[in-house]
Amino acid sequence: MRIIIVGASGTMGTYLTQAFEKEHEIIKVSTKGGDIPADITSPASIEQMYKKAGAFDALICTAGPTYVGAWEKMSPVEFKKGVEGKLMGQINLVLIGQHYINPKGSFTLISGALTHEPQRNFANASASNGAVEAFVRAAAIELERGIRINAVSPTVIESSPHYFPYFPGEMPTTMKALEFGFRKSLFGAGTGQVIVP
Amino acid sequence: MRIIIVGASGTMGTYLTQAFEKEHEIIKVSTKGGDIPADITSPASIEQMYKKAGAFDALICTAGPTYVGAWEKMSPVEFKKGVEGKLMGQINLVLIGQHYINPKGSFTLISGALTHEPQRNFANASASNGAVEAFVRAAAIELERGIRINAVSPTVIESSPHYFPYFPGEMPTTMKALEFGFRKSLFGAGTGQVIVP
Repeated sequence: MRIIIVGASGTMGTYLTQAFEKEHEIIKVSTKGGDIPADITSPASIEQMYKKAGAFDALICTAGPTYVGAWEKMSPVEFKKGVEGKLMGQINLVLIGQHYINPKGSFTLISGALTHEPQRNFANASASNGAVEAFVRAAAIELERGIRINAVSPTVIESSPHYFPYFPGEMPTTMKALEFGFRKSLFGAGTGQVIVP
Repeated sequence: MRIIIVGASGTMGTYLTQAFEKEHEIIKVSTKGGDIPADITSPASIEQMYKKAGAFDALICTAGPTYVGAWEKMSPVEFKKGVEGKLMGQINLVLIGQHYINPKGSFTLISGALTHEPQRNFANASASNGAVEAFVRAAAIELERGIRINAVSPTVIESSPHYFPYFPGEMPTTMKALEFGFRKSLFGAGTGQVIVP
């Protein structure tokens, strides 16, 4: 399978690349470096990335910039970070990528427990996740040629211990569980699902 | 109670104004006309609206512009309509309005069944609703001075029969049920709730 991983240089992307590259061809996409550089906040950059990548069977996105910080500082300006990043960035990967992906291909986006389990400082990520999850359900009934779409929704991941203090009471998602969440989306038959690894 | 209704000239806003104006002071806000005109896609316009409105106890928003149309035509450009309208418009009403609302005041936003029950042509509304609902849960744990926030989530409303063909299998929400959903948010004690009327 030919798999594009967007956010390939991040913590999740690096792990997933190593997990899948033995059996699959991985095209690594990140803001800097990787096989193809791309800025998901720019539809033009996304379009160019797909043109360079060529035909593919699956896209994984683990890139989701959001504004993390004190509520008092969360103005309409800061809120745009997640809206243009994790929210519209991922949605645009699908709206544009549906014209490039092979029949029966799949898109797997990243959301997170913050959709239903809010934590202080993360309202921007909560809103972005909620949009991505509802979009996944809606896009699943619209996409043609057997193309599937799912989201994987971990809580704080075990490889990001610096975030643990911000997620009291959340048992970190292991990297193995995260990998298996993506496996379910890529190699299973489900669509319109929010997979909690 | 002094209540701002944003979207006061729409189908829902008109009904809610009539339902509440016997016992409460209503400040009608809409894009054109009303007591105060405002464009919720503009933070500057929202700020100006609050300055004109003065102190208030509750804000109801029933305004939620989104792109409705065939999936094939839903490009990143069309998708912005809901993101700047129903999604960021409503979130900015809260981010800005929290500095103007009275202590123990409440914000009640509009989402909709499309969050979990997608229908063709409405992916933009699904994503916007999902963001609003997750934001409501996140903002509820951040807002201070006893300020509450909820969303009311109807399906297609009985006063919009032209939309019925697009919502197969959905029993329309009666206007009375819709009103009582808003009553629960305004006059109850709940916060961070998605109220299904």
